[in-house]
Amino acid sequence: MYNKVDAQFLAGLGKIVGKEQVFTDAPTLDKYKTDEETNPHKFHVPEAVVAPGTTEEVAAVVKLANQANVPVTVRSAGTSLSDGAIAVKGGIVLLMERMHKILEINEAGMYMVVEAGALTKEIQEAAKAKKLLYAGDPCSADSCMIGGNIATNAGGNRAVRYGTTRDQVYQIEVVTPTGEIVNLGARLKKKSTGYCLEQLVMGSEGTLGIITKATLKLLPLPPYRFDLVAVFTDVAKAADMVTKVLKAGIAPTSVEFMDNHFLQSSCQFCELTLPHMQDGNYIIITVETFSEDELDMKMEQLDTLCEENGAVDVLEADDRVWKVRRNCQESLRVISPVSITDDVVVPVDKVADCIKFVEEHGKKYPFKVLTLAHAGDGNLHFCLCKCDLDDATWDTEVAKFHAEVYQYAYALGGRLSGEHGIGAKKLPEMATYTPAGELNLMKEIKKALDPKDILNPGKIFELE
Amino acid sequence: MYNKVDAQFLAGLGKIVGKEQVFTDAPTLDKYKTDEETNPHKFHVPEAVVAPGTTEEVAAVVKLANQANVPVTVRSAGTSLSDGAIAVKGGIVLLMERMHKILEINEAGMYMVVEAGALTKEIQEAAKAKKLLYAGDPCSADSCMIGGNIATNAGGNRAVRYGTTRDQVYQIEVVTPTGEIVNLGARLKKKSTGYCLEQLVMGSEGTLGIITKATLKLLPLPPYRFDLVAVFTDVAKAADMVTKVLKAGIAPTSVEFMDNHFLQSSCQFCELTLPHMQDGNYIIITVETFSEDELDMKMEQLDTLCEENGAVDVLEADDRVWKVRRNCQESLRVISPVSITDDVVVPVDKVADCIKFVEEHGKKYPFKVLTLAHAGDGNLHFCLCKCDLDDATWDTEVAKFHAEVYQYAYALGGRLSGEHGIGAKKLPEMATYTPAGELNLMKEIKKALDPKDILNPGKIFELE
Repeated sequence: MYNKVDAQFLAGLGKIVGKEQVFTDAPTLDKYKTDEETNPHKFHVPEAVVAPGTTEEVAAVVKLANQANVPVTVRSAGTSLSDGAIAVKGGIVLLMERMHKILEINEAGMYMVVEAGALTKEIQEAAKAKKLLYAGDPCSADSCMIGGNIATNAGGNRAVRYGTTRDQVYQIEVVTPTGEIVNLGARLKKKSTGYCLEQLVMGSEGTLGIITKATLKLLPLPPYRFDLVAVFTDVAKAADMVTKVLKAGIAPTSVEFMDNHFLQSSCQFCELTLPHMQDGNYIIITVETFSEDELDMKMEQLDTLCEENGAVDVLEADDRVWKVRRNCQESLRVISPVSITDDVVVPVDKVADCIKFVEEHGKKYPFKVLTLAHAGDGNLHFCLCKCDLDDATWDTEVAKFHAEVYQYAYALGGRLSGEHGIGAKKLPEMATYTPAGELNLMKEIKKALDPKDILNPGKIFELE
Repeated sequence: MYNKVDAQFLAGLGKIVGKEQVFTDAPTLDKYKTDEETNPHKFHVPEAVVAPGTTEEVAAVVKLANQANVPVTVRSAGTSLSDGAIAVKGGIVLLMERMHKILEINEAGMYMVVEAGALTKEIQEAAKAKKLLYAGDPCSADSCMIGGNIATNAGGNRAVRYGTTRDQVYQIEVVTPTGEIVNLGARLKKKSTGYCLEQLVMGSEGTLGIITKATLKLLPLPPYRFDLVAVFTDVAKAADMVTKVLKAGIAPTSVEFMDNHFLQSSCQFCELTLPHMQDGNYIIITVETFSEDELDMKMEQLDTLCEENGAVDVLEADDRVWKVRRNCQESLRVISPVSITDDVVVPVDKVADCIKFVEEHGKKYPFKVLTLAHAGDGNLHFCLCKCDLDDATWDTEVAKFHAEVYQYAYALGGRLSGEHGIGAKKLPEMATYTPAGELNLMKEIKKALDPKDILNPGKIFELE
């Protein structure tokens, strides 16, 4: 169906980006066979890797790929947890890392213009230096790039208050699947001027266009902050707190849930002792305000709310708590060399039900189940640890458990992914759980904008 | 290109919705020849009018229209200011008004499920009765319906804080242009599960689907409120306040601008006297909070801010002020029987420049120019009054002035419409000011989803 990369195509790439930015050596190709995926069965070594330095070069590469019928997989920082940066149909991997500049920070206009390869961390820091806030904050912020954040609509701890990445973007410069350069969206607070194409392209995981530049929203940086832990011995009570906090008008920045399994494993990993380590489930709440009085007021309000709702303890969440929270994923290695982290999202008022379901039904299975949640936005990460289970049982049982949880999440009105995306990893589930009419609309749009299926093929869905 | 409505088609419609819901009598057809458009040259009498009562009926009508090749124009409450509900290509007008029910109000989940023909006002009131807020609030809220609000991404006075209609919606039930029923979006705070089709369809002015049902977000209702007027004799200083208010972290609900022309005409119309009527330009700011202390704090902060930035007076905005603000449009009738209201949007930090441009350049023209703005979101309404100008001069000069303003707004990064939409009215301007690449993407999507151009043809753009 596609053509193989040949000498003529490579020469064409070299003409566009310069020969030194086209890679076919084995070590480089090998480096880009995977992203955060650790299962070798999922790896695909690309036929070539290309690193354009400008939008015009990206566009020219995509035009050439269309002519030659060679698929293009875009790679941002490669922090995808859903095989998003793997060239599953072969062809070339296109690197965005040379386009890493912050082009403008405009304080009066409260926006920033960046190239797609700019590091999210540097964007956050550059905003902060101007006493402004870039509110996008995926957990991989230290290493990820903004283009990938936008392409996957990355979430994180602050999404409760500020929304996900798609809410932080005014405008994107995009190279379309046929190699045209377009600017979608505008630096405006509202707009009723034609289709909202920017929101269509954002979150399309590179299948509808390559994001090359973005104009990001900056917000006033709240100078006051407190972090609180409410400890519950009852999981349901902990989860029930979430809706109550959201309804109280406190506008928290984060509302995180960490179950007792994770609390124990991460405390052990960090060699730290935390209150109620043996029986506590933690709800960690961050509130940020523009005045000290407002902060005091909200802290008091929250304190009362926690106690009224069965918290056995309410403490300040100091650095130790956040360290334990941050190291949850890492701590799994102590329990088990192989583990799987999943990502489902349900309505916020159903997050308690979903957490209970995962924990209760998890007990039937021969692996260990641990649960974390960006509870304030209904996004659950549950982690399964293989421990000493044999491969065949592990594969079968994981599939069974996933099916059970996905069905339940959909029955609650949930979806397969809150922030990790579908990529190539959840393709079968996407086909199973998405109604045909909706999936068909996606495919029709993909076919219309990418008639040769050149851009990131084999992601989100398969075209027939 | 299209077929005319014939007896067979009418019989088909009758079978779907019942004969009594198919109208071909002259008075009914005449009633639906226009929306808020008052220029008879823009009227189009439809060939038939149909009023389905269920989503399934809507879908069946659209399927029949596809088979018969008859265009369908959807009509919500007909409050469009951009000829959005006019059947410019003939065919049938499809009324949503029989589907007017509020189906569910869920307090725990903080959402409401409504049919597309539900009145926006009733939705607002139903939410308020449960001490919750539906934050969509277009100025036509007393008469408009939610389906039209969503289809046009309606704005209003509260968009500064809460965003426009597209930000108030979790999920929409949609009949596609080929007559399939799909549910797009979900009642979730975040989602990375395929394309964001709901945002594509919202604001597409009925060209990509007929919205039949919606799940709306409800928010905590802030119990405390104050309204303040800052009076400026200098237009630029008034407008400069806007960015400063937004940057201060006050999170105002409204930031409205009313120039001295409007202040005078509306005071006269309302037979009211307001402070600084002779030389004042008003900035009206509403702040709503969840505590009295927070309100006091913000009021004080705002007071200082206004005075530091050259306000000649800072007063409470009582009912009289809002009455004058609400009656601006009406008051034009006293000045001139014929007037045109336009709607451009620019970046918030450019709103001062744009207001000054409109007022200064307006002086060169033989008509009177008055300016209002939802200044907090950069959305300007400028009104031109024909007074005793002859028709030919009026037409030529309005076109010249519009071109001047649109070019300037685009140079600032603005767009043709902040909330009224493109409809059939701004079709030529849409073609002129939208880059070909962007417009082409819209057309490709329209062609992919509506291959026969059946749904609301002749809106936003013309397909070749």
